[in-house]
Amino acid sequence: MTTLTKSLANYAQARRAGDFIFVSGASARQPDNSVPGARRVDGAWVMDIRLQTEATLKRIDTVLATQGAGLADIVEAVIFLLDMADYAGMNEVWNRVFADPATAPARTTVAVRQLPRPELNVEIRVVAWKKP
Amino acid sequence: MTTLTKSLANYAQARRAGDFIFVSGASARQPDNSVPGARRVDGAWVMDIRLQTEATLKRIDTVLATQGAGLADIVEAVIFLLDMADYAGMNEVWNRVFADPATAPARTTVAVRQLPRPELNVEIRVVAWKKP
Amino acid sequence: MTTLTKSLANYAQARRAGDFIFVSGASARQPDNSVPGARRVDGAWVMDIRLQTEATLKRIDTVLATQGAGLADIVEAVIFLLDMADYAGMNEVWNRVFADPATAPARTTVAVRQLPRPELNVEIRVVAWKKP
Repeated sequence: MTTLTKSLANYAQARRAGDFIFVSGASARQPDNSVPGARRVDGAWVMDIRLQTEATLKRIDTVLATQGAGLADIVEAVIFLLDMADYAGMNEVWNRVFADPATAPARTTVAVRQLPRPELNVEIRVVAWKKP
Repeated sequence: MTTLTKSLANYAQARRAGDFIFVSGASARQPDNSVPGARRVDGAWVMDIRLQTEATLKRIDTVLATQGAGLADIVEAVIFLLDMADYAGMNEVWNRVFADPATAPARTTVAVRQLPRPELNVEIRVVAWKKP
Repeated sequence: MTTLTKSLANYAQARRAGDFIFVSGASARQPDNSVPGARRVDGAWVMDIRLQTEATLKRIDTVLATQGAGLADIVEAVIFLLDMADYAGMNEVWNRVFADPATAPARTTVAVRQLPRPELNVEIRVVAWKKP
């Protein structure tokens, strides 16, 4: 059974439009609000980009499954990091998941000022393409 | 009659491609360049996220109307805040406009370094889906 | 012959989905990794927004050509600057390339914290629309 993480406001986890599926910005946040790859040390968040990227892609896969799709159907991704120092670690996980460049999605990566929660260091927004 | 805010460069307020309508990043900026929810106090901008979010969504509705569409046709939104401290206030207005999560768009929210004008604290980019 | 810049990870330079072409975030970075409009002065990068914007749009045109499309087929662009002080310079080049507002793409511009490489001051992500 699929367990979705609760949205932080009135938005859909995924929205189908014809053959396209727009997925809301996903993070490592779990249905119980825990975040793999984030722990509190001396009042600050210590975050692991590999664990968070892995958990984020797993979340996206879960959301896409509700639309009869999966990670292989993603055609575009925009990756929002908190710090470009995490670029290599994020790529390490990305390259393992999308092993074949020929079928991999188009991708854009930038580092922004803040993500919706202080314990996150990556948020990924994807568009998938799959007939209903 | 529809009054559009003048673009800051050679870009379309909205561009149709098949059944999709891509809307340019919208803000609270009005056709007369005034910005509801922004006032100058001691040389700095004091900005109200609720007023700006409300005005921004109204702008988007006006632009979509030129394409025979409206807010209900939005399938994806990316929200660029200036400060994640405005997340709750933005959500308050968002949840009023998109009252039903079942038909609400997919959404991604990040806080960026700067928006095109210093008196703005939110910019929203949407994609709508509606047959011509 | 088309020379593409090597991707920094396993992602496609462009990915077609029906009549849409999603292009990966592009920059002024060339196939030999040089960056027009970036030079090292006293250990810091001095960057020219006009040269980088021009080179970035040329890169996007090269990538679109591999899909039988070109700049005129772009329906949406998201521009990530490093500093909004570059907005006017970027617009100057943009307005020269997209001279006719009637056929210009929808566009969103924000300034982010960091781009994938320290010698870049602009990254552009576009979606084009052209039948295969």
